[in-house]
Amino acid sequence: MTNTNPPHIGVIGGGQLARMMIAPATALNLQLSVLQETPDSPAQQAATHTGDHKNTQTVQNFAQTVDIITFDHEHVPAQTLETLETQGKIIRPSSKALAHTQNKLTLREHLHKLEIPQPKWARITNTNQLQEFMKTVNNNAIIKTPSGGYDGKGVKHITNSAEAANWLKQHGTLLAEETIPFTRELAQLAARRPNGETRLWPLAETKQKNGVCEEVIAPAPQNRHSTVTAQAAALAETLAAKLDITGVFAIELFETPAGQLLVNELAMRPHNSGHFTIEGSRTSQFEQHLRAVADLPLGDTSLTAPAIAMVNILGGPDTGMPSRYPAAFAAYPQVKIHCYGKKYREGRKVGHVTALGETAADVLRQARAAAKLFT
Amino acid sequence: MTNTNPPHIGVIGGGQLARMMIAPATALNLQLSVLQETPDSPAQQAATHTGDHKNTQTVQNFAQTVDIITFDHEHVPAQTLETLETQGKIIRPSSKALAHTQNKLTLREHLHKLEIPQPKWARITNTNQLQEFMKTVNNNAIIKTPSGGYDGKGVKHITNSAEAANWLKQHGTLLAEETIPFTRELAQLAARRPNGETRLWPLAETKQKNGVCEEVIAPAPQNRHSTVTAQAAALAETLAAKLDITGVFAIELFETPAGQLLVNELAMRPHNSGHFTIEGSRTSQFEQHLRAVADLPLGDTSLTAPAIAMVNILGGPDTGMPSRYPAAFAAYPQVKIHCYGKKYREGRKVGHVTALGETAADVLRQARAAAKLFT
Repeated sequence: MTNTNPPHIGVIGGGQLARMMIAPATALNLQLSVLQETPDSPAQQAATHTGDHKNTQTVQNFAQTVDIITFDHEHVPAQTLETLETQGKIIRPSSKALAHTQNKLTLREHLHKLEIPQPKWARITNTNQLQEFMKTVNNNAIIKTPSGGYDGKGVKHITNSAEAANWLKQHGTLLAEETIPFTRELAQLAARRPNGETRLWPLAETKQKNGVCEEVIAPAPQNRHSTVTAQAAALAETLAAKLDITGVFAIELFETPAGQLLVNELAMRPHNSGHFTIEGSRTSQFEQHLRAVADLPLGDTSLTAPAIAMVNILGGPDTGMPSRYPAAFAAYPQVKIHCYGKKYREGRKVGHVTALGETAADVLRQARAAAKLFT
Repeated sequence: MTNTNPPHIGVIGGGQLARMMIAPATALNLQLSVLQETPDSPAQQAATHTGDHKNTQTVQNFAQTVDIITFDHEHVPAQTLETLETQGKIIRPSSKALAHTQNKLTLREHLHKLEIPQPKWARITNTNQLQEFMKTVNNNAIIKTPSGGYDGKGVKHITNSAEAANWLKQHGTLLAEETIPFTRELAQLAARRPNGETRLWPLAETKQKNGVCEEVIAPAPQNRHSTVTAQAAALAETLAAKLDITGVFAIELFETPAGQLLVNELAMRPHNSGHFTIEGSRTSQFEQHLRAVADLPLGDTSLTAPAIAMVNILGGPDTGMPSRYPAAFAAYPQVKIHCYGKKYREGRKVGHVTALGETAADVLRQARAAAKLFT
């Protein structure tokens, strides 16, 4: 252990994830700078640069002012990151690791090599290939653009290959996946340091609506498949090491009726499924991400209550969430409310609420009711 | 309940208390601005103005940019605050309430009127008065400058009135108090809204060294005097209402061998004895202060663990606290570390650590050991 100071961390992207890194950076007095896209981003408080993350020069200018680069999203072009690495810049996660989240086909191929359970899938470049694939999945498939999608965007359910014609023409290559008749969705959140130290939070259950995370409950309630916790933990340990991930990452999982876990998606950054850790764990995913990318020992991931529920606020009141504080604070003094400072837009994630308590049913009831006061 | 947005809060003073208000203000997207004294203050992240809080024009310029004024410390001249109030500015706590913390004689006189238990005391303007007082307290007294003292400054133990001669000459008026042979010191933290809503945190035990808070344990361990909790709660309720306090306040108390509580000091702002609430309570004192001064319903003050210990870091390593993170994080992954971003100075409060667990003995041991890694 040397007495050198921790590195200056630069975050590309000024969304709510970057915003929520500011509090732990301030508590620990870690240097944190943000490259935001627009001047009024949720993370403007820590923004030192404003510009387009798709512009190589913008990213390079920002990179010169920090020691380590990390991310609020996965949309920085791979080539820009590779160039920075060639110039000796430290990027965590690395461009090579990040490729698995930037391109869904890259992830599927790597998972296949690692023999990790996942939905049946195929790389599709023409209608014939898709027709063949559709036969093997009972004409019930999900098509995805390999890159650029999020929150249900770039994802489409089809029962006929003709429904993919426009996307195929537009994107050239698509990922097709079988539709999994899952009993529930789970998320395994974890963090890994460059030296390999890995810590996992307890498995969480997530509920999505139209491809957008709606609520999260931690720990995932026990069901008749007692092995899911161990399956999820093993998957996280394997992926962390084999994909050489650094920082926080989240594995989104399907649980099948037989109790098997299949990998749905992977994110290499703090994730909506981990917002419950702000109050619900000794170490939040945002503090942990800073520790991990700064190569500092990771924090304890124990939960702080028997049950924790997080409910997203989508859209929100057009007068802004704070206009509802008098009613919400009075009705739910024990619920923690987070507002991202975003302008109103239909369906946009503008905040979330977290409730802690004794049972999943009780905290879900509280969090849902409190969130409802912001619609 | 109306749909108006919460007021823009201005904090005078850029110390660690203002710094620790930033995280909850960001989480709730409340507008917070700070008047800091120097450009590199702990709260610089939220500073919109830099200047001397003793300069009326500086304070007035700052006040014009916010809706409500509150404080990081009690050193703004009363006359400046009264002038602002005359101009219609909202100050919370008000100048009238604040007078009880700005002048210790004012507090003693008011407590006397309210028949609230406190140490024997006297207003001293000449040596004869002090000699008379010394006789009544067995020649064992504490003298205090009525205003301006903090962290043991402006406080002196004397056994002979001659020891007060210089201070008396310098300050004109002093407060003399009997020395209380207390069994322990306690702190009752609470918050009050303008509408009267008052919430108390569980009573905490504090340990001071040379007049500076060293460690806090919450809840205060039970001893043979089972009524102290109720005594402290009643004192907080009474003082909140009778002194018309708004915002967070802390009552520092002596417990006598007979189990009676006597009021030692009063602070009308978040207080060192309440830092444990950041992780140790559903609502931290910093979030609660923002709620209270913004006249929003107060948050739940339940503790998040059976025992919580907070230990201050004084002075700290001259290379800065973050230089010790590798060792401290590795040894104490479950302890939360706070660093205020202050330059090294002997005995200065530069940060604190908090441990949560099952027993007072266990969390104290952890917090002390972790804090020791920063000396």
